[in-house]
Amino acid sequence: MRQPLARELHDLLERGRDRQLRLAVTGLSRSGKTAFLTSLVNQMRHAGLEARLDLLPAAREGRLLGARRVNQQDLGVPRFPYDQAMAALEETPPRWPEPTRGISELRLAIRYRPPRRGLLGSDTRQLTLDLFDYPGEWLLDLPLLAHDYPGWCQAQQALTGTERRSLFADWHAAVAALDPTAEADEAQLAAIAERYAEGLRAAREAGFADLQPGRFLLPGELAGAPVLQFFPLPGLARLDPAERERLPPESNYATLARRFQYYQQHIVRPFYREHFRRFDRQIVLVDLLGALNAGPERFQDLSRALATLMQSFDYGQRSLLSRLFAPRIDRLAIAATKADHVTPEQHGRLVGLLEALLAEPLKDLRFASVPVRALSLASIRASEAREVEHRGQRSPALRGTSLDGEPLLLFPGEVPDRLPDADFWARQGFHFPAFRPLPLEGGALPHIRLDAALDWLIGDKLT
Amino acid sequence: MRQPLARELHDLLERGRDRQLRLAVTGLSRSGKTAFLTSLVNQMRHAGLEARLDLLPAAREGRLLGARRVNQQDLGVPRFPYDQAMAALEETPPRWPEPTRGISELRLAIRYRPPRRGLLGSDTRQLTLDLFDYPGEWLLDLPLLAHDYPGWCQAQQALTGTERRSLFADWHAAVAALDPTAEADEAQLAAIAERYAEGLRAAREAGFADLQPGRFLLPGELAGAPVLQFFPLPGLARLDPAERERLPPESNYATLARRFQYYQQHIVRPFYREHFRRFDRQIVLVDLLGALNAGPERFQDLSRALATLMQSFDYGQRSLLSRLFAPRIDRLAIAATKADHVTPEQHGRLVGLLEALLAEPLKDLRFASVPVRALSLASIRASEAREVEHRGQRSPALRGTSLDGEPLLLFPGEVPDRLPDADFWARQGFHFPAFRPLPLEGGALPHIRLDAALDWLIGDKLT
Repeated sequence: MRQPLARELHDLLERGRDRQLRLAVTGLSRSGKTAFLTSLVNQMRHAGLEARLDLLPAAREGRLLGARRVNQQDLGVPRFPYDQAMAALEETPPRWPEPTRGISELRLAIRYRPPRRGLLGSDTRQLTLDLFDYPGEWLLDLPLLAHDYPGWCQAQQALTGTERRSLFADWHAAVAALDPTAEADEAQLAAIAERYAEGLRAAREAGFADLQPGRFLLPGELAGAPVLQFFPLPGLARLDPAERERLPPESNYATLARRFQYYQQHIVRPFYREHFRRFDRQIVLVDLLGALNAGPERFQDLSRALATLMQSFDYGQRSLLSRLFAPRIDRLAIAATKADHVTPEQHGRLVGLLEALLAEPLKDLRFASVPVRALSLASIRASEAREVEHRGQRSPALRGTSLDGEPLLLFPGEVPDRLPDADFWARQGFHFPAFRPLPLEGGALPHIRLDAALDWLIGDKLT
Repeated sequence: MRQPLARELHDLLERGRDRQLRLAVTGLSRSGKTAFLTSLVNQMRHAGLEARLDLLPAAREGRLLGARRVNQQDLGVPRFPYDQAMAALEETPPRWPEPTRGISELRLAIRYRPPRRGLLGSDTRQLTLDLFDYPGEWLLDLPLLAHDYPGWCQAQQALTGTERRSLFADWHAAVAALDPTAEADEAQLAAIAERYAEGLRAAREAGFADLQPGRFLLPGELAGAPVLQFFPLPGLARLDPAERERLPPESNYATLARRFQYYQQHIVRPFYREHFRRFDRQIVLVDLLGALNAGPERFQDLSRALATLMQSFDYGQRSLLSRLFAPRIDRLAIAATKADHVTPEQHGRLVGLLEALLAEPLKDLRFASVPVRALSLASIRASEAREVEHRGQRSPALRGTSLDGEPLLLFPGEVPDRLPDADFWARQGFHFPAFRPLPLEGGALPHIRLDAALDWLIGDKLT
């Protein structure tokens, strides 16, 4: 059997010859990660036959020959559940696949022919594409590495929208009674931490995205462990810093600070160290339409969450990320998903809005010479574009089926092409519906501009 | 704040002065780990007031002053859910607590007075008791470290009871079609592995215990990862060993062998290295009555599982365990639990049967000078001993309430005091019922000989 060292060397050579690529897909929950990966694998599996990939030159030119799944490299990472996702889409009526939790992985071997150069035909070649899927919430924890515990408490204090604050009311009441200098009672801290986690869960349910610490929302095997039982201490500012640091290790302050440090060291860092810094390319999915539906406070919150999330791609020499982990992502895509939920003439505005929302982070990225592209797409198209006539005027509309099975024909509204102002929120009638997936008709899954995203993310490796 | 190194030093000193003890509780699923730990903590919390601990000298002599929960050391290990367990027992009607999954931990600070020596009264002292709870299934994986993949396949082949084999029928059919020399198909291996895991789950449901690999039954965050997608290859014996080792790394054989090795290195070893070798004392709980209820094949299977499990406590110089991990457990208890499910005069026979079942492992342990004691107990007594008169003869009986709320008064049968033979199984009418917990009456939980177990496990540290 080939030994690990030999295998690593082999992998290194493959990568050196541009034959191996690690592509990561992320986004906050419900941004459409599972649909994106399912559709990507599905298109590649149909490559050479019935794939719908006209915007990917290798496919358009007939050079994409096919793809198959092969053994993944990291045996301890769950495999992306492609078969289960396809089974859900193939049911009658079709269902959206279950969302993934945590990180998952899938390796594809893609066979292609390079473009013909000169008179002779060319050989077939193979690109090994490692696909990774992980929760965007994990990236929201990066700034947590920049803080010590008192600094983090202060940063969290700044998040004070009315609606958001009301979701944490129980926690606010409980933590107000906690004396940072008193001796810690494990059960009491656990109870207050549970209120904090409940607040985070309620906020996520309500559509908020800027939620730290991310692992509180997906505790997995750490459920009930002290490392997930800390929270910001609002009363900390009233304590003299010197006095604070003299508090005994049994105090509430010192106990919570210890847990915060453990979280930094044992939860946040390992993800960046073991996974993130090995990705070559990255796509970030954003459910912009969902945030538009949810109103100004949550749209604002998404904006802040995205700004935080984008710090993980800021490779400027002096960025926190570069100093800590020396990552290698050399190409980035930001995609507004679910474009099939608005009529086609709105797609341009959707990209415009995404670019407006990310204006500052995009500037930073371009300054740091990270190639980045913003686009809109629908990984699995669930509606059909139509025109309806109303009082003699033709106007665009969408046809689809609601999740309950009701046929829908509607115009969901106009997407603002720049950041919405108070006026927009006041008069806004924007409300896009949720569609059930279309019944499968054989061939590859229907999509909108998934091929454009693929061209940007892997197209240059297929030449 | 005290630094990690200083804290470790402090802990080391505490332990050197016999003031710190790490006590681990294990047993196969449904052996009663949660009830044992809940009752232990409950008795300690009531120490000095209403604890029922007459067989523990420190308690009998009034030297046990009290106990409280303090911050545990390992922030990444879930805390044992004592409050939730007590809440279940306090419901109307009372419920058995939810079983724990994976490892959990709880730290108690116990205050006591050493026995009076000379004329002067003595100070109070403190014992820091770290309690750990982990699935006995993890110990069944130790022998897996002694094998390479072909050896493990052969060892698993040996497990061929009719009933057990029938539970793996689907897997047998699927694996028979797999050619070890063919190129591996991830989806096919995943499907066959899922059948294997289904077989293990069905076997556990049916009361079997000798199940490897243990982590297949509690996958946690590894669900769907290739490391949990291997299984024994029955056809391996037909391959020439030299030829086998020449198979390419893409072959089914090499793929499965690689996963097996990954499982050894990344699942089995870390448990022993990070947890097991740090335990000072251990109690192993055994649901012997459940196995008697279930019949000869499963009783035989429990016997084999216990023999395997006991290897983790064999500290002979040449044992696998000592060579690999240098563990330090210096005292061991093996307890037949749920003694309240048979009438009191059967308790002696229950211990006799346990010793007969473990005769060989106990010999090995005693040869290796590991102090070990076998006993029977009920962590939380759920029945009351009564006598009934039938045709002028008084005979023992149990009174309790079934899980459905029916009042019960019965004689569950005689426990054989040596290994049951064919004759016993032929005429056996043994059938013990499941009792609902008794309603709490204030004070500590009722139990049977939990105090004897505590005396053996921690009594010497309270002097």
